[in-house]
Amino acid sequence: MSTTSRADFEAVFPSLVEDLLNHAKKYNLPENALQWFEKAINVNVPGGKLNRGLSVPDTGMALLKQPLTDEQFKHLCTLGWLTELLQAFFLVSDDIMDGSITRRGQPCWYRHEGVGLIAINDAFMLESGIYVILKKHFRSHPAYIDLVELFHETTWQTELGQLCDLITAPEDNVNLGNFSMDKYMFIVTYKTAYYSFYLPVALALHYLQLATPKNLCQTHDILIPLGQYFQVQDDYLDAYGDPSVIGKIGTDIQDNKCSWLINQALQRCNEEQRKTLDAAYGRKDAELEAKVKAIFKDLELEKVYHEYEESTVGDIRKKIAAIDETGGLKKEVFETFLGKIYKRSK
Amino acid sequence: MSTTSRADFEAVFPSLVEDLLNHAKKYNLPENALQWFEKAINVNVPGGKLNRGLSVPDTGMALLKQPLTDEQFKHLCTLGWLTELLQAFFLVSDDIMDGSITRRGQPCWYRHEGVGLIAINDAFMLESGIYVILKKHFRSHPAYIDLVELFHETTWQTELGQLCDLITAPEDNVNLGNFSMDKYMFIVTYKTAYYSFYLPVALALHYLQLATPKNLCQTHDILIPLGQYFQVQDDYLDAYGDPSVIGKIGTDIQDNKCSWLINQALQRCNEEQRKTLDAAYGRKDAELEAKVKAIFKDLELEKVYHEYEESTVGDIRKKIAAIDETGGLKKEVFETFLGKIYKRSK
Repeated sequence: MSTTSRADFEAVFPSLVEDLLNHAKKYNLPENALQWFEKAINVNVPGGKLNRGLSVPDTGMALLKQPLTDEQFKHLCTLGWLTELLQAFFLVSDDIMDGSITRRGQPCWYRHEGVGLIAINDAFMLESGIYVILKKHFRSHPAYIDLVELFHETTWQTELGQLCDLITAPEDNVNLGNFSMDKYMFIVTYKTAYYSFYLPVALALHYLQLATPKNLCQTHDILIPLGQYFQVQDDYLDAYGDPSVIGKIGTDIQDNKCSWLINQALQRCNEEQRKTLDAAYGRKDAELEAKVKAIFKDLELEKVYHEYEESTVGDIRKKIAAIDETGGLKKEVFETFLGKIYKRSK
Repeated sequence: MSTTSRADFEAVFPSLVEDLLNHAKKYNLPENALQWFEKAINVNVPGGKLNRGLSVPDTGMALLKQPLTDEQFKHLCTLGWLTELLQAFFLVSDDIMDGSITRRGQPCWYRHEGVGLIAINDAFMLESGIYVILKKHFRSHPAYIDLVELFHETTWQTELGQLCDLITAPEDNVNLGNFSMDKYMFIVTYKTAYYSFYLPVALALHYLQLATPKNLCQTHDILIPLGQYFQVQDDYLDAYGDPSVIGKIGTDIQDNKCSWLINQALQRCNEEQRKTLDAAYGRKDAELEAKVKAIFKDLELEKVYHEYEESTVGDIRKKIAAIDETGGLKKEVFETFLGKIYKRSK
């Protein structure tokens, strides 16, 4: 199937930056603040992998089974960029909360010279930009209020996931008794799956006026498990991926992350192994990290993972096969997502 | 005229907290996160002066000139509490950005045990709560989308004001060349006047379906100058108010605040005075602060303030007298606001 080129998608971005700056100019925002905001946008919004953004026009093409008009393409790319604005809002603020050092190979925004905690307000402004652009381009669209409510709902879901993550796995207070597979699934579902998987497809459905309750429900019931699987993979690759392929060295064990692997280990370990995990997990120490990895090995978590992967992907494939396409939904939308993710190594 | 009692207004709040918690429960938010969120709401939303919140039902009563039905009262109080949620979102995050110590006589939320920068996400959740409640209670109201857009617009305006304030008057880099009366008016208008004055009245107008362009325009053209005057008063009282009456000792000079007084001083001082201001303003030093105050005195800023006050209040009174009430707007709405503010000492 045809997919959106990164260059075509990126070509839409500058006019959206102009929309935001022009709106601020209308208010006579002083020049120093205008320049600041422009820089905050350009440092934080483009430059990622753009998977979420690109999947909005890609989904539109798969749904229509015909080339998009220029207007449809521009609109779907605009909605795609709004998912990237939402992501930028989350990443700028998450990096502050996590005390992260780099993002996309650059210093995190809050660590740029002179920025610091002003980045909190910059994150807010990236979020507000979503609604400024929605109003400018979609105010007369029949699904306008649905698009607005979808962004509200997704934002709120992501914040609930982030709250649960922050208080379940604080880096400075290791307590494995806090972890559970239920909490893990809540965190990955709410913090990642909704905004990364469900949102882009739901946006395309609303835009093309195909967002019937049934289509949204079928979409939800496939993409949420797919998003969970994606995050479980991420956790697996953190420990078992090839650092030269995934582009980073995994730090989940030392960082006390509530990951899929530790939750599997907690369900399977004996008392002695549990004592070792309690003493070794979440410590900034390579030898203790190695002890945790040795227990993961003894518990055969690689095998557990591969069994999970086959079982989950099998379920998802069955759901895709069972999709009712009579309401305009297309199996291809989901096959493409799954194809990009299944057995990925990075 | 009759006004809303604090107790009647407060009685509406617990059901709104329940709305938010029930929504999170529907998602199976784990219990520890639910308790955290409940505490974040109860520490940060009630407990202030509630001026903004109370002015929504008060405006409703003044507009209708008859007692509100129970449903109208409940709805207007709900909208009032949404202005308090918005304020809580701003205050929690401003306190982090400013490194503030106390708020309403308590430690700032981010300084509570175990909270820290998780408060950033808590602030987001307070903001999201606005739209959860709007959707639950106003989804079928004819002005639903107007209410949503009004909160978006006001949030964005406040963020632009906050950005300008943060980069114009950083506490750790004094440069009076950065200040100007234009920037000052931008900051007070956008950071304070829109959300504190225009928003509550515009909400009541939308709710009562009196939000014609003309009524909104008349409201704007009175309440924005009134909000500016309110903030100028605040700056005046910081230096000239009685600490035992206003409940705090003014710190604007030592904190390098871009206040009305320093901007007036910069417009009126001679070269020698300017050198002293450059050397003494924004320093954590009582003797240097006294030098700044001496220049304020030499420049007769108290007299300048009183002239500004009389001239501004005169203009506002003229505009109130000229209001066209045929579209349902009432002079009384604005007379009440002005009556609370004129020559206040705290």
